[in-house]
Amino acid sequence: MAYESKAVRRVEFSETDMAGIVHYSNFFRYMETAEQGFFRSLGFSLVTDKTDPPIGLPRVHAECDYLQPLRLDDEVEIHMLVCEKKSKALSYLFRFRKLNASPPFEVARGKLTVVCVTHGADGKMESVPIPKALADKIEVAPAEMLK
Amino acid sequence: MAYESKAVRRVEFSETDMAGIVHYSNFFRYMETAEQGFFRSLGFSLVTDKTDPPIGLPRVHAECDYLQPLRLDDEVEIHMLVCEKKSKALSYLFRFRKLNASPPFEVARGKLTVVCVTHGADGKMESVPIPKALADKIEVAPAEMLK
Amino acid sequence: MAYESKAVRRVEFSETDMAGIVHYSNFFRYMETAEQGFFRSLGFSLVTDKTDPPIGLPRVHAECDYLQPLRLDDEVEIHMLVCEKKSKALSYLFRFRKLNASPPFEVARGKLTVVCVTHGADGKMESVPIPKALADKIEVAPAEMLK
Amino acid sequence: MAYESKAVRRVEFSETDMAGIVHYSNFFRYMETAEQGFFRSLGFSLVTDKTDPPIGLPRVHAECDYLQPLRLDDEVEIHMLVCEKKSKALSYLFRFRKLNASPPFEVARGKLTVVCVTHGADGKMESVPIPKALADKIEVAPAEMLK
Repeated sequence: MAYESKAVRRVEFSETDMAGIVHYSNFFRYMETAEQGFFRSLGFSLVTDKTDPPIGLPRVHAECDYLQPLRLDDEVEIHMLVCEKKSKALSYLFRFRKLNASPPFEVARGKLTVVCVTHGADGKMESVPIPKALADKIEVAPAEMLK
Repeated sequence: MAYESKAVRRVEFSETDMAGIVHYSNFFRYMETAEQGFFRSLGFSLVTDKTDPPIGLPRVHAECDYLQPLRLDDEVEIHMLVCEKKSKALSYLFRFRKLNASPPFEVARGKLTVVCVTHGADGKMESVPIPKALADKIEVAPAEMLK
Repeated sequence: MAYESKAVRRVEFSETDMAGIVHYSNFFRYMETAEQGFFRSLGFSLVTDKTDPPIGLPRVHAECDYLQPLRLDDEVEIHMLVCEKKSKALSYLFRFRKLNASPPFEVARGKLTVVCVTHGADGKMESVPIPKALADKIEVAPAEMLK
Repeated sequence: MAYESKAVRRVEFSETDMAGIVHYSNFFRYMETAEQGFFRSLGFSLVTDKTDPPIGLPRVHAECDYLQPLRLDDEVEIHMLVCEKKSKALSYLFRFRKLNASPPFEVARGKLTVVCVTHGADGKMESVPIPKALADKIEVAPAEMLK
């Protein structure tokens, strides 16, 4: 059973904007880096045909609070924690920490809610329960870690 | 006095992901399209040296709820409404509508909160009141439009 | 028969980088804007199942020469011209002009070569002739326009 | 004296497109990952005020040949080699190899040419010789590596 994942990225030139800082939309791509690592660690992928039925995990809610900017060459740790688990949906909390600082400090906090979908015969997405092979490997993080 | 802005985009191939729909992070770029048009209509820019002091508007909060996916070549209208105005901060509501449908329908709803900053002598960003030349042109949208 | 397409974009904040100019990778996304409009004007899409077989047009070569930078709020025209047509491949020339200048001037020039592919029974892409329904609508631009 | 740099990335969900493969524009962002690592290894940054004058390295030419697609979770090595050094410009060759294959194989090859610029008193970019502190650390790769 797993409830967390960590990823580290270095801020790239293409992620900055003319204000000299990481464009805010990129934090949502950073979240996915940690999420993708989470599913990879469980033997799955963000879009997978290893389950029956094949599933994807489109987002129904995304949010982020920005505390401090990130700049070129900064190292950022993205810590993902499962904060809610329903039959057809998962929610994650994300904490972003700037590592190249003494001591490292939190620069942002985010949240995603995803639903489990498959593609019906007509090609349309329809929500389905998270396949047991995957669901059995995921649990909610301990309450004290989610504060 | 202005409180809204509309922009229309057509979904581009590079905005889709392997699930065949617009990647969720792009809705945050779409929000900026409408916001940028709002400031341009007032004679300003998202980063401007036309005010004293020169200012930028980094985001401190961003969120989006996704109702329906967007696909290649879809036409989406982004309707931005000012929903809060403080001395140093603004919040906007965004409604996304898919136009190439009969009738058009809402596909997502978002919110941004931005703060007004300038760069101090040491290069660091510090929050400042929205310059009067700009603030005087912005008002909160009527309550019934924000429901 | 068609051999050209034009698109106009306004430079967005999220397309700039910390050097204050449009990140060079975005010119390749701009090229697609014009290319997507070209296929849309012919009744097709960049990825289409309206042909038999369904096809996509992955790139095998891309290049761009950058003459002048683009900045926030600049208006850029992307002019695409078909410069080569083979049974399984197309090449396009792109001219980028900054419109908000008197007179407008060229800021970049690019080229793409795409191949027509379909997905085999094993899911792998394989190159196929451009379906006649599409190929019959495309011709190479007059030589004097390609100088 | 340095003439090469290697970086490894794992393909992210946000880098794919609806064709199920990495969008071609992202290879140009991947090139920068290796280039950024090259300058970091020399004690500099892609945009630096550690030199006199402060410099940036905007691109004047970019190209890429695509041999095989990359997909979600693929591991790609980007090998950058300095292939030309002039007083005001550098050119690099890039080889992309898919590592999660036996044996790994080349999936793309790219090239960038950058010029050294500083910002004049009027804010405009002007080309300048690469500062000696930086230029003295860079050499062209051995000819046999550039074949």
